[in-house]
Amino acid sequence: QRRFFRVIFGTESGAGKAFDLLLIVAILASVTVIMLDSIPELHASYGALFWRIEVMFTLLFTVEYAIRIWCSENRREYVTSLYGVVDLLSILPTYMAFLIPGAASLTIVRLLRILRIFRVLRLFSLVKEYAEILDVLRKSSRAIFVFFSMVIILTIIFGCLIYVIEGPSSGFTSIPISIYWAIVTITTVGYGDVVPVTAAGRVVSSLGMLLGYSIIAVPTAIVTTKLYEKMQGDDNRVLNWNCPNCVR
Amino acid sequence: QRRFFRVIFGTESGAGKAFDLLLIVAILASVTVIMLDSIPELHASYGALFWRIEVMFTLLFTVEYAIRIWCSENRREYVTSLYGVVDLLSILPTYMAFLIPGAASLTIVRLLRILRIFRVLRLFSLVKEYAEILDVLRKSSRAIFVFFSMVIILTIIFGCLIYVIEGPSSGFTSIPISIYWAIVTITTVGYGDVVPVTAAGRVVSSLGMLLGYSIIAVPTAIVTTKLYEKMQGDDNRVLNWNCPNCVR
Amino acid sequence: QRRFFRVIFGTESGAGKAFDLLLIVAILASVTVIMLDSIPELHASYGALFWRIEVMFTLLFTVEYAIRIWCSENRREYVTSLYGVVDLLSILPTYMAFLIPGAASLTIVRLLRILRIFRVLRLFSLVKEYAEILDVLRKSSRAIFVFFSMVIILTIIFGCLIYVIEGPSSGFTSIPISIYWAIVTITTVGYGDVVPVTAAGRVVSSLGMLLGYSIIAVPTAIVTTKLYEKMQGDDNRVLNWNCPNCVR
Amino acid sequence: QRRFFRVIFGTESGAGKAFDLLLIVAILASVTVIMLDSIPELHASYGALFWRIEVMFTLLFTVEYAIRIWCSENRREYVTSLYGVVDLLSILPTYMAFLIPGAASLTIVRLLRILRIFRVLRLFSLVKEYAEILDVLRKSSRAIFVFFSMVIILTIIFGCLIYVIEGPSSGFTSIPISIYWAIVTITTVGYGDVVPVTAAGRVVSSLGMLLGYSIIAVPTAIVTTKLYEKMQGDDNRVLNWNCPNCVR
Repeated sequence: QRRFFRVIFGTESGAGKAFDLLLIVAILASVTVIMLDSIPELHASYGALFWRIEVMFTLLFTVEYAIRIWCSENRREYVTSLYGVVDLLSILPTYMAFLIPGAASLTIVRLLRILRIFRVLRLFSLVKEYAEILDVLRKSSRAIFVFFSMVIILTIIFGCLIYVIEGPSSGFTSIPISIYWAIVTITTVGYGDVVPVTAAGRVVSSLGMLLGYSIIAVPTAIVTTKLYEKMQGDDNRVLNWNCPNCVR
Repeated sequence: QRRFFRVIFGTESGAGKAFDLLLIVAILASVTVIMLDSIPELHASYGALFWRIEVMFTLLFTVEYAIRIWCSENRREYVTSLYGVVDLLSILPTYMAFLIPGAASLTIVRLLRILRIFRVLRLFSLVKEYAEILDVLRKSSRAIFVFFSMVIILTIIFGCLIYVIEGPSSGFTSIPISIYWAIVTITTVGYGDVVPVTAAGRVVSSLGMLLGYSIIAVPTAIVTTKLYEKMQGDDNRVLNWNCPNCVR
Repeated sequence: QRRFFRVIFGTESGAGKAFDLLLIVAILASVTVIMLDSIPELHASYGALFWRIEVMFTLLFTVEYAIRIWCSENRREYVTSLYGVVDLLSILPTYMAFLIPGAASLTIVRLLRILRIFRVLRLFSLVKEYAEILDVLRKSSRAIFVFFSMVIILTIIFGCLIYVIEGPSSGFTSIPISIYWAIVTITTVGYGDVVPVTAAGRVVSSLGMLLGYSIIAVPTAIVTTKLYEKMQGDDNRVLNWNCPNCVR
Repeated sequence: QRRFFRVIFGTESGAGKAFDLLLIVAILASVTVIMLDSIPELHASYGALFWRIEVMFTLLFTVEYAIRIWCSENRREYVTSLYGVVDLLSILPTYMAFLIPGAASLTIVRLLRILRIFRVLRLFSLVKEYAEILDVLRKSSRAIFVFFSMVIILTIIFGCLIYVIEGPSSGFTSIPISIYWAIVTITTVGYGDVVPVTAAGRVVSSLGMLLGYSIIAVPTAIVTTKLYEKMQGDDNRVLNWNCPNCVR
């Protein structure tokens, strides 16, 4: 049981690494099959084959899930943890599809298994960078939340302005659609599906573009400063005592 | 009167926090109703209901406005302050709609009440980050203003160039429209509603895109530097005390 | 002569400031008239009026140009300077239009007078920020040039790839057009006038988007670092000697 | 042989610089000819001329390639090096076109010779900046790889969400196309060829836009911090000598 635990949950031993690599290949293969199955032409010719592969992968993941429960020291903790829930969600929909035949949208939930890759990513010792980015984002989350609430209020103001100026004849049929246009514009995505046609509307949208183009500086500045502070925090104390003259 | 003041304007007491939470829910609900009312399908079926809810919220905000005036120590100051004007503007349009029936665009002014949320945001102690961002933007406002005037002169130059090159046959029917195209291009929004079709026009617009793609670095650099300076400004004094001279 | 010089070229005296303000209003008014004249509807109804205003402004600027030459200490220097050439170019096209009637594109050159605003901008004491931004851009110009040559080589590679993959049937009729598409994609403008339709083309363009989305970090990093170095360069020496303990 | 080596591979001597300049002109001219040849109108009128110029350039590059092999000290090393392979690939397709007449796509490979410019870029002493940018990108490559894997997982999640919400009727005919849409949206390119039309789809895509708009801060922060650290690393030692201890 302990050996199983080390192989499946650990990454130190050779067998643990090999298991993780196998698992990542299985997850990617399974996700690829689900994606290919969604293409109408391929579903028509290979739908049955894809389904058989899918059932096979589900059985595999079910066995893995069972072993994980069996060899966990604290079983309840594993089952109720985020990883445990994702593991369950990635096998459940296939079984549900047997019981409720027409549940097409359920099969999509299977794609959640891509989230499982996060766990296996530990393998690459990339976790340091990954944890660093997440930590910086967490530290700047309050400032970014404030920035977002400002952007959302801006999009509401621009959305209402354009709704009053352009009106339903140009495609701005309601305030929610106008706010959708404002988000498309201020984030500089610019689909072009809803577009101002009057002179006043174009002036307002030009202002929105210039605003969106320049306020992108704010989250960048916040994250850069936080990341730099974090980096310096590690080196700073050493640097202050480091006069080559004095150390001698 | 004093107790009312503390509850309505303050955020320290428990009752003050509860009042602020209630108010934020009321504001968001009222804004949501106005937005939903602008969707033609919903207006057709629920227009009367929305109007009744709207009148109810207006009465609520009127009572709140009256209490605010009553319990203020300096009533004139409150009424003429930005918050006081926004409070008034968010209830006035509904009453005006009773007097002037056809004033559809007036109802939009009611959306101004979203601005009231800024006040209640104090609740979340987020004000520090919010004030910081505003302060950095204020400090870099002169540099950003210069940057903007450069961008606007660039858009005018690109707009005139494309107007001469492409001409009315490709949709560039006037210089203002060509400048609108230049703003859409340089801010990297790219709607695609007005697009160059000649070889020369595409070369010019490619230059505009590359320019717009790279000068975004300027406002980002300004805001990042100002924010970092501000952050360091707080820590600097502490850092200076780590003087190798003094530690001995 | 000296007094005229001080009023026209200087910004210190009250009369000099008033003259600069008048000039900036005249330039903006004149540019606005040229823009409005390019709108077909307005040209049809007010074309004659616009032309009369234009002639009036040209006479005004001619008088100003003459006085500038007359009161300059070194006349040749002024005439051959960039400002002198722009001043001449902003009045010449109107006179040329009298001689060669059909020279429509010549009238566009008049828009060059917007460049004259740069001179008057001195008024706002904004020059410090303006000079700072230009200085930082000049210092990072070599690095940005290298970055640009990398981006251009990338667009050529992506343009050739998509030309081979998509071919003329999807609108990629030649390599130059495919490179134009690559620039539109990598700079994240995304007009949508030329768009990949095959699966392979979409994979390639997705790679191009992700690349363009992330390498924007390079010029931003360069400009931010240079700007920060410049800012620190001014303060650094002071900071190093500034131990509050030691100064006593 | 040694003199040839110095002229062809070196950049110090006057003859070496002149040779490099000639080579860069030849490469750019040859690439331009290939591009112009791809335009149908020009190919129709000047196709034969372009082919003759192409053959001439190929002979020239063949002679250059032969001399390079001849004067290399370690011939095998040159031939198997990246530069040697690129040199060979840029002449081979033209000879292949004589043997296999219909190989249209092969001619594209000739465009690989644009890569040869990288070598000649040494001439401009720009290599320092170029090497610096590449070095910073290499140092931040792990963090950027992590960022990319996060972005790709995000695009998969958003792609699946929109596929379930919008479905084939709005153009989201398969999961791969929906992921393509998610990449177009999150990178803020926004072609507008596939666009959400339902209310729920627009809400999801708005979230995707805001996310893509703000997480661009992450790679920018990483590269800026790494570049700044690198810059400081060079100056730091000098800065440390300003120790208040030592100056006395």
